[in-house]
Amino acid sequence: MEPFEIQILGCGSALPTTRHSASSQIVKVGNKLHMIDCGEGTQLQLRRLHVHFSHINNVFISHLHGDHCFGLIGMISSFSLLGRTSPLHIYADALLRKIMKPQFDFFCKGLSYNLIFHDIDASQHAIIYEDNNITVETLPQIHRLPCCGFLFREKPKKRHIIGEMMEFYKIPPYMRTGIKEGNDYTTPEGEIIPNSRLTRDADPSRSYAYCSDTLPCPQNNAIIKGIDLLYHEATFADDEKARAKETFHSTAREAATIAHDAEVKRLIIGHFSSRYTDESILLNEAKEIFPCCELAGEGKSFIL
Amino acid sequence: MEPFEIQILGCGSALPTTRHSASSQIVKVGNKLHMIDCGEGTQLQLRRLHVHFSHINNVFISHLHGDHCFGLIGMISSFSLLGRTSPLHIYADALLRKIMKPQFDFFCKGLSYNLIFHDIDASQHAIIYEDNNITVETLPQIHRLPCCGFLFREKPKKRHIIGEMMEFYKIPPYMRTGIKEGNDYTTPEGEIIPNSRLTRDADPSRSYAYCSDTLPCPQNNAIIKGIDLLYHEATFADDEKARAKETFHSTAREAATIAHDAEVKRLIIGHFSSRYTDESILLNEAKEIFPCCELAGEGKSFIL
Repeated sequence: MEPFEIQILGCGSALPTTRHSASSQIVKVGNKLHMIDCGEGTQLQLRRLHVHFSHINNVFISHLHGDHCFGLIGMISSFSLLGRTSPLHIYADALLRKIMKPQFDFFCKGLSYNLIFHDIDASQHAIIYEDNNITVETLPQIHRLPCCGFLFREKPKKRHIIGEMMEFYKIPPYMRTGIKEGNDYTTPEGEIIPNSRLTRDADPSRSYAYCSDTLPCPQNNAIIKGIDLLYHEATFADDEKARAKETFHSTAREAATIAHDAEVKRLIIGHFSSRYTDESILLNEAKEIFPCCELAGEGKSFIL
Repeated sequence: MEPFEIQILGCGSALPTTRHSASSQIVKVGNKLHMIDCGEGTQLQLRRLHVHFSHINNVFISHLHGDHCFGLIGMISSFSLLGRTSPLHIYADALLRKIMKPQFDFFCKGLSYNLIFHDIDASQHAIIYEDNNITVETLPQIHRLPCCGFLFREKPKKRHIIGEMMEFYKIPPYMRTGIKEGNDYTTPEGEIIPNSRLTRDADPSRSYAYCSDTLPCPQNNAIIKGIDLLYHEATFADDEKARAKETFHSTAREAATIAHDAEVKRLIIGHFSSRYTDESILLNEAKEIFPCCELAGEGKSFIL
């Protein structure tokens, strides 16, 4: 199967610490890299973790808080200094472009590549990106300003052809694409060979959702139901439940409840408040509700 | 003597690397901290190096290239999250304020402290800051856009009173301030005691200059003549002399020539191009001209 992998560049929250960088991660599907969020210092994390800069095609920005977007201008500038030529697509609230326009105009004059902005409406659940392999959907979140998560879904894949059956029925190569898509085969004698005898099931379509920053949003459970991996913010532990509510964040237990109720297969928690110097309290509270849970961490990779 | 110390937060050049952070440093005079330049990641360097955030009063920005100012917005935001109350003064080209206004308006709404901008004219040599202890002067540089260095000079200090002489002549305490300033003392009998018998020489006034990014500017030598410490950019070695000229930077040898000709006491070189994974080539070339030279490095402190 093609790679489908999530690499964490940063999983801290508003205040950067020496333990955690600001929010950013890479979703690798096939040979394309998609970035989610780009806090200050992201370009350095790319270097530190040996990510191939030039393979990053898209950057999805969940919301306009500094810890999710202050790294953009530096990264965009550096890509140009490094001679990038392929376009870079930025998916974000329309305000980002407006706010940063004077900066882009001044610092990014004569960029070596095209920077293409795509405005997204965080309040709507919609497909905002599509290529041969995946779609990306927005997941409306509840935060102090417009904010959305992102759901990466592989498209349904083609069935696997059984080579022996192709030879047995002497099926000409030009018909194989149709058979991969589910067609039956009719022999020259008129016999119909059902597709199920000619092919094996397609690989499952994998799916990943990123939800940060947000109050728990059970209204999205139907959308993310059964996905392979959920990254959910867990800024606080139970002891700061009131603070979580007040700041429109989630506790670890609330993140785990979403994972449980949406019946996802695995959960990663991140966006840790700088007050925790040991996140095991967050992990333990989450695991009480949803055992298949792991802590995010800079440099950690999660393979689907 | 009061502390006068320079701490390097970052001494890399345009491209951040895992070896060097973007340009920033702290000049500590007495209990005040002055920051020079603020590249991306500066706030993290402050944490890493345990700098007391709240003691930073002023930020001096040499010029508007990203590696010297992209860290401002994140640092300003974080200071507010941490509840800073004392004002922060930013000395920079007027354009900075204009370029970043929409960002400040959006991300820095309801800041917990006052952010005060002071426009500076990089093309003029002038005193732009003054307090009880120091003055800061601009040093016009030659770069691809308006750029200036900064010269920190302690003000002349008062002479040291010789306690025994105060007692011997029974000089009343209220007269001591004048004596520290150089007054003679007239005894009740009318005898004039010259100040030189009552006091020892004042401590010397220390001085530090920061010059980055720039072509060599010998026209500033008269201004920085004899200073205690010069930080000068040395982006390139001799082998890239043409590239240095083309990009309006200096080589290590050129930096050392400035130090030599201006008869400064010590030289630090920094702003290293990312192409050098070992800066000893830069140090060796500089030392051929000016032996009292050291390499800058993240976390290194230089005490005057």
